[in-house]
Amino acid sequence: MTPDEFRTNGYALIDWIAEYIEGVEQFPVASQVKPGDIRASLPAHPPAAAEPFSAMLKDLDELVMPGITHWQHPSFFAYFPGNSSYPAILGELATAGLGVQGMSWVTSPACTEVETLMIDWMQELLGLPAKFRSTSATGGGVIQGSASEATLTSILAARWRITDGAINVTGDTTKLVAYATSQAHSSIEKGLRLAGIGTAHLRIVPHDETFAMRPDDLARMVAADRAAGLTPFWVCATAGTTSSLAFDPVALIGAIAQRENLWLHVDAAMSGIAALAPEYRWVNDGLELADSYCTNPHKWMGVNFDCDLFYVADRGALLGALSILPEYLRSAAAESGAAIDYRDWQIPLGRRFRALKLWFTIRAGGAGDAIAMIRRHVELTQELASWVAVDDRFEIVAPHPLNLLCVRLVAGDSATDALIAAANDSGKALFTRTVLDGKVACRLSVGGRATEATHVRAAWDLLQSLASEG
Amino acid sequence: MTPDEFRTNGYALIDWIAEYIEGVEQFPVASQVKPGDIRASLPAHPPAAAEPFSAMLKDLDELVMPGITHWQHPSFFAYFPGNSSYPAILGELATAGLGVQGMSWVTSPACTEVETLMIDWMQELLGLPAKFRSTSATGGGVIQGSASEATLTSILAARWRITDGAINVTGDTTKLVAYATSQAHSSIEKGLRLAGIGTAHLRIVPHDETFAMRPDDLARMVAADRAAGLTPFWVCATAGTTSSLAFDPVALIGAIAQRENLWLHVDAAMSGIAALAPEYRWVNDGLELADSYCTNPHKWMGVNFDCDLFYVADRGALLGALSILPEYLRSAAAESGAAIDYRDWQIPLGRRFRALKLWFTIRAGGAGDAIAMIRRHVELTQELASWVAVDDRFEIVAPHPLNLLCVRLVAGDSATDALIAAANDSGKALFTRTVLDGKVACRLSVGGRATEATHVRAAWDLLQSLASEG
Repeated sequence: MTPDEFRTNGYALIDWIAEYIEGVEQFPVASQVKPGDIRASLPAHPPAAAEPFSAMLKDLDELVMPGITHWQHPSFFAYFPGNSSYPAILGELATAGLGVQGMSWVTSPACTEVETLMIDWMQELLGLPAKFRSTSATGGGVIQGSASEATLTSILAARWRITDGAINVTGDTTKLVAYATSQAHSSIEKGLRLAGIGTAHLRIVPHDETFAMRPDDLARMVAADRAAGLTPFWVCATAGTTSSLAFDPVALIGAIAQRENLWLHVDAAMSGIAALAPEYRWVNDGLELADSYCTNPHKWMGVNFDCDLFYVADRGALLGALSILPEYLRSAAAESGAAIDYRDWQIPLGRRFRALKLWFTIRAGGAGDAIAMIRRHVELTQELASWVAVDDRFEIVAPHPLNLLCVRLVAGDSATDALIAAANDSGKALFTRTVLDGKVACRLSVGGRATEATHVRAAWDLLQSLASEG
Repeated sequence: MTPDEFRTNGYALIDWIAEYIEGVEQFPVASQVKPGDIRASLPAHPPAAAEPFSAMLKDLDELVMPGITHWQHPSFFAYFPGNSSYPAILGELATAGLGVQGMSWVTSPACTEVETLMIDWMQELLGLPAKFRSTSATGGGVIQGSASEATLTSILAARWRITDGAINVTGDTTKLVAYATSQAHSSIEKGLRLAGIGTAHLRIVPHDETFAMRPDDLARMVAADRAAGLTPFWVCATAGTTSSLAFDPVALIGAIAQRENLWLHVDAAMSGIAALAPEYRWVNDGLELADSYCTNPHKWMGVNFDCDLFYVADRGALLGALSILPEYLRSAAAESGAAIDYRDWQIPLGRRFRALKLWFTIRAGGAGDAIAMIRRHVELTQELASWVAVDDRFEIVAPHPLNLLCVRLVAGDSATDALIAAANDSGKALFTRTVLDGKVACRLSVGGRATEATHVRAAWDLLQSLASEG
């Protein structure tokens, strides 16, 4: 592809994207294909000759699009939102165009320094504790790919701290015990497993009727483990759980963590971004006691996946756990201590210039846009809750302080399962099924960039009409 | 940003990228800034009001560019290449524009199915063993972000297999022992550490004068560990080491691995892509004995980072190690066994539609382009070696079957160090320092998409003239 062809094709793709995003409502929210359909529609073998770019755009429309579940659709109420925005898309494009590696400061200083600045801008915008700033004495932050990776990184730093670094030599994890509720994200169990803390040493701390951790139970379990000769080392508090957006009492958990020398990780992957709006800054309550924290601009802030902000109070533990320095990665800048090598703050070595999409988004007004969007989503969710409350076929099964509502049919699990399946099959909206305290529930996550009152109303009409048929 | 503004800004950015790539030779290869310079040039606080996109483009040119080390520069001979190409850049743009999550098949079936097809296209193009095809009875592949992650994933699958899955419950890694040479990539030690195999249980297998593993030593060390009551479980063979592109004898290592029930991982992150060209397909020798394998289209194939191909012969071990199934991730398609959920093939949960950039690249003629590029790079490297061979101030310190040449000054380490520093400071080319068997060497990695004979000649002229001055 020549530079001129790149220009022509690039313009065409830019147009295609704008048309896609502005027209996404024409598609069924969820792909209707069966396993294997998409592959069967594509050539089994690589092409023998080069094809024009127009062929790829045509195939995107005709062959790929039927296999897309549209995360940017305004009637996408499933999982959590995966917002994108025009400035962030351009940020990704600029990243690809520059094609630099940010594994070390020296491999492209701007890649590291813009990222460090974005970490501090976001600390300021979110009102996070100053100890997380990169300019603080011992803390700092990094952009990771996902909250899963942030969680694993937190576990590894905690593992290093509790063993005074011996873990790097011995690999002995057999005494270590971690704590979370059943409502914590699946990446907690996965991250612990990867780090050598099996399910036998993951304590599921009971939750209360709001699905929040019971700190007294945490304290009791920690004491029992210590009495049994084990070493409690890490606790995850979630600020906005996946199933129901429950908020663990971070301040109370933090007090126990401090007393018991547990590393406190706060997972606010979804809800942390709400702190952009002053009236929702309570989502940060207790963070001054956290050892590490993460939240995802790629969920509720219009920054394309992947963009997870991961902060630590003690970067020494992180570097202890993750630094490896072969000869071919040495640099004078890093050895002087004046530069950050972000490869030592994450699992992989290589890294893209991910800060550009956050920089572009904020500069294009993205923080203000996100505040307006967050307010709209929370208001729409509360309005939806008021409609559900007066339909006695339905019940609301969890608190809903922000933008997630969990509902079920009083008729029971099978009726609720059937309702979710029928709604999703309609293609008119998409919801996610979960189970809360043994009961099936339908999650309505109101988080689409383009989601307005009409879409929420239509989603509720759909559920109501299907409930009548069922 | 309105759709019309996105179009206008997008066209401008497309133009900017083409100008950057075509004009990259005007820049010094390595950034000349000092730690803190870039950050100091940027606003300390986020902007209070939205800025126009033109301000961002201007800042890219004026403030960011001085902090860029240009991986796409034709005189970039450092590290390994991180090639990009116009079709791959457009692939990244399409990925960002669609903004879908590929964590599960059901979250966007096309994201999974195009990826599975690319895995099989690449198996075919590279001539890899059929057992790695996704259509094989037990194997398959996935696109990971980096070889580091592929390595870790391989270790986790091996850890699961050797313990019959008990690791997920007990987390007990204290008996497990792994093997690699000192020439294996730093991500091997890091991956093992993360998985709970500390340096006390990483055996550094001696290498021969070509920097390749001595299989007899491997066999001896495995026997000694077994006699000591330990459990050998994983060996990494490298096809093209980072320091010198040494090739471990995979077939011989594989025979030992099979006999001793070790999981054999072959790390061909850099060199594996050479198998696109029939005359270099020897890089695959012995792969039929590998349990897992990785190579990076983001190094030598013009596909933007991140794009690592990771193949396994037994996907059961992978799924055993990495599957976690909370209620909110269940789907009928996955439970039927007809669909792949790639979240269970990797560390994080979330994932981008990374297959698009590989699909676009191959369809735009990228495999043929890569073959031509690989042949050119290897020829240029051999020509360079012939020049070095007749300058008796220099010596070549390792075999150079492909596109990496390691040289040093016979005057010794400090002279070689000074040479590398002076060459890199010149901004005219960029090399990486390494140490081979205790001696400092300068690596010349000939891998740039735009690197031609003139650039290699100029690099050699630079080294020669600096050697004269020194």
